[in-house]
Amino acid sequence: MSTLFARLRERAVEIHVEEHLRLRLERGDRLRVKLGLDPTAPDLHIGHLVVLDTLRIFQDEGHKVVVIIGDYTGLIGDPSGRSETRPMLTEEQIAANAETYFKQLDLVLDRAKIEVRHNSEWLAKMTAADVLRLMANATLQQVLQREDFADRLKQGSPIGAHEVLYPFNQAYDSVAVHADVEIGGTDQLFNLLFGREIQKAYGQEPQDVAVFPLLEGTDGVQKMGKSLGNYIGLTEPPEEIYGKTMKIPDQLIEKYVRLVSDLSSEDQERVLAMKPRDAKAALAFQLVKRLHGEEAARRAEVDFDTKFRRREIPEDIPEKRIATASDLSGALVETGLARSRGDARRLIQQDGVRINGEKVGLDSVLADGDVLQAGKRSFVRIRLG
Amino acid sequence: MSTLFARLRERAVEIHVEEHLRLRLERGDRLRVKLGLDPTAPDLHIGHLVVLDTLRIFQDEGHKVVVIIGDYTGLIGDPSGRSETRPMLTEEQIAANAETYFKQLDLVLDRAKIEVRHNSEWLAKMTAADVLRLMANATLQQVLQREDFADRLKQGSPIGAHEVLYPFNQAYDSVAVHADVEIGGTDQLFNLLFGREIQKAYGQEPQDVAVFPLLEGTDGVQKMGKSLGNYIGLTEPPEEIYGKTMKIPDQLIEKYVRLVSDLSSEDQERVLAMKPRDAKAALAFQLVKRLHGEEAARRAEVDFDTKFRRREIPEDIPEKRIATASDLSGALVETGLARSRGDARRLIQQDGVRINGEKVGLDSVLADGDVLQAGKRSFVRIRLG
Repeated sequence: MSTLFARLRERAVEIHVEEHLRLRLERGDRLRVKLGLDPTAPDLHIGHLVVLDTLRIFQDEGHKVVVIIGDYTGLIGDPSGRSETRPMLTEEQIAANAETYFKQLDLVLDRAKIEVRHNSEWLAKMTAADVLRLMANATLQQVLQREDFADRLKQGSPIGAHEVLYPFNQAYDSVAVHADVEIGGTDQLFNLLFGREIQKAYGQEPQDVAVFPLLEGTDGVQKMGKSLGNYIGLTEPPEEIYGKTMKIPDQLIEKYVRLVSDLSSEDQERVLAMKPRDAKAALAFQLVKRLHGEEAARRAEVDFDTKFRRREIPEDIPEKRIATASDLSGALVETGLARSRGDARRLIQQDGVRINGEKVGLDSVLADGDVLQAGKRSFVRIRLG
Repeated sequence: MSTLFARLRERAVEIHVEEHLRLRLERGDRLRVKLGLDPTAPDLHIGHLVVLDTLRIFQDEGHKVVVIIGDYTGLIGDPSGRSETRPMLTEEQIAANAETYFKQLDLVLDRAKIEVRHNSEWLAKMTAADVLRLMANATLQQVLQREDFADRLKQGSPIGAHEVLYPFNQAYDSVAVHADVEIGGTDQLFNLLFGREIQKAYGQEPQDVAVFPLLEGTDGVQKMGKSLGNYIGLTEPPEEIYGKTMKIPDQLIEKYVRLVSDLSSEDQERVLAMKPRDAKAALAFQLVKRLHGEEAARRAEVDFDTKFRRREIPEDIPEKRIATASDLSGALVETGLARSRGDARRLIQQDGVRINGEKVGLDSVLADGDVLQAGKRSFVRIRLG
């Protein structure tokens, strides 16, 4: 069995068609591996490393990573609810966003070896008749299986009729670049399989598909996402990446280590055998090292340790879940650090309350993972929601 | 109140927006009245007279009837389940089918005054981006309210994803020709109202819409349709039209007289006061007269009477409903004309069984409305299903 296939099978949640992909890799085919990017939201986070590392594995074994900049919808504008033609992004904006993407991809992939395509190349040339023929290759019922469509139908939330086109466009990208493999998160399974169907309809051998786990955010509850505030961005400063990693709940350590540390199996086991606080430190060091280099990782580690020692925050702190982040007095009562709201307010006014070692006022807002401190010796790590 | 509006309100099942249309007619606007035709199925039947007569009323008062030949889908081919480009109809075939249509429209409308348009004029020029912008003007949920979509979803019958485009194309036709009014059968209500929405999205005043009753077929059960065999075609020979009309169930007489006879109100009342057999004869005469002229109507009447007198078929015959048309022996037993299958077979073999006065064999198949006769004096009118 090829090493690449073994590593894929170890990481992936599902592979379609596993046997087909195994055979192609064994016989030494040079495969075209598709990655589609939406240039309207160019920020990547460490959750994306799951897929990027997989692409790197393909690239290292001589396969061709084909990155598709999905500029088509951006160029014509999202037409929802508008009768006029209004481009959402100019070509310059799309180029700038694509550049932002590539700076992040560079952290993992060898950019010189990537084939870059824009889907306006083929989608903008389509006529209405081409669209009709494209859409005739699937039933509406198939399209409505897509999770976000199914959910919105169930909830009665509107689906723009034009949105039905999007999975077809994305699938047709696989036809246009002759993709052999497409990979993504488990939430992309429908789209990736739909690419297979459309390739078949256009007489192509369908791509194999592999989907990978989604990384929970630093809150340990929801999928990592910028709008959820539980996010470690690939381009964040070393101290931020280190500090946010130190805040993740203990039960996420193994998933982060296995999915995005880029450590060897032996090193992973070594880290996972440590006490939680030390395992997080090793993971935080490794993440900063991957994204900013070893020197930056060392500095971030020293910086973090110094701050925590200076602030005399102990290593093992009990976690408490609270209902709202914006009610500091309430949080002090809820976590047991104060006996009453009056007591809590007095403590704060007497400079006796700290968040992550810094003195705070009545209006301060808590974030998930913050260390809330009352007096010298009472500490609680905050979990929200 | 304008006469035209009064006649519309008398005939229509629903008018949207009634008050708006009334005002426009009262102030003497010259309206553009849209009729869309599908050139892949150019045969019209007397059920279509409900709408054609209404168009004639508009035409007679100086409004412009705009006929749209829906050649676009025909020219690019119905793409369902095909990956190749295969035109279903050539331009010559579409022109020939359109000509067939116009020969039939000529029976009611003044062709010289019709504005004829082909929707490929505007739909073939659309780009994929135009399609996306067009579709963005409605939600998928709105489109799925269309009765045939809703039914197929409920039954689990496939809907081609490209079929979602059809109501948009049809609605955009109203934009392209600046329709003020669109009329159709009650089964077209969704499409006609959808035209209003799309016109609004493109900054046009939305068309008013009027829908008219669907005529039941000669079986008195289903809507008239060629594939259902319960059909009186506009171009059928006089004797066929006359004979088929004489076979309709008594309870349909009033609807036929009111909807498609083109008789004045007084003449309608006069006919409806007659005995059923005479009312049918008057209706049959009138239908042939409208479609083939008075001379042909007279000949068809004489021909029918002679045949029935010669065959000694009485005027009032009991009706019997039977389960299957292709089992003559069974039908004889089911209707009480024979005591057993053996008895039925003997009767047939001895030339004692007739359908509409003609001797028949064991393999003969019955049609709805046929007169089945055993011996000299036993008659039954067959109703199927």
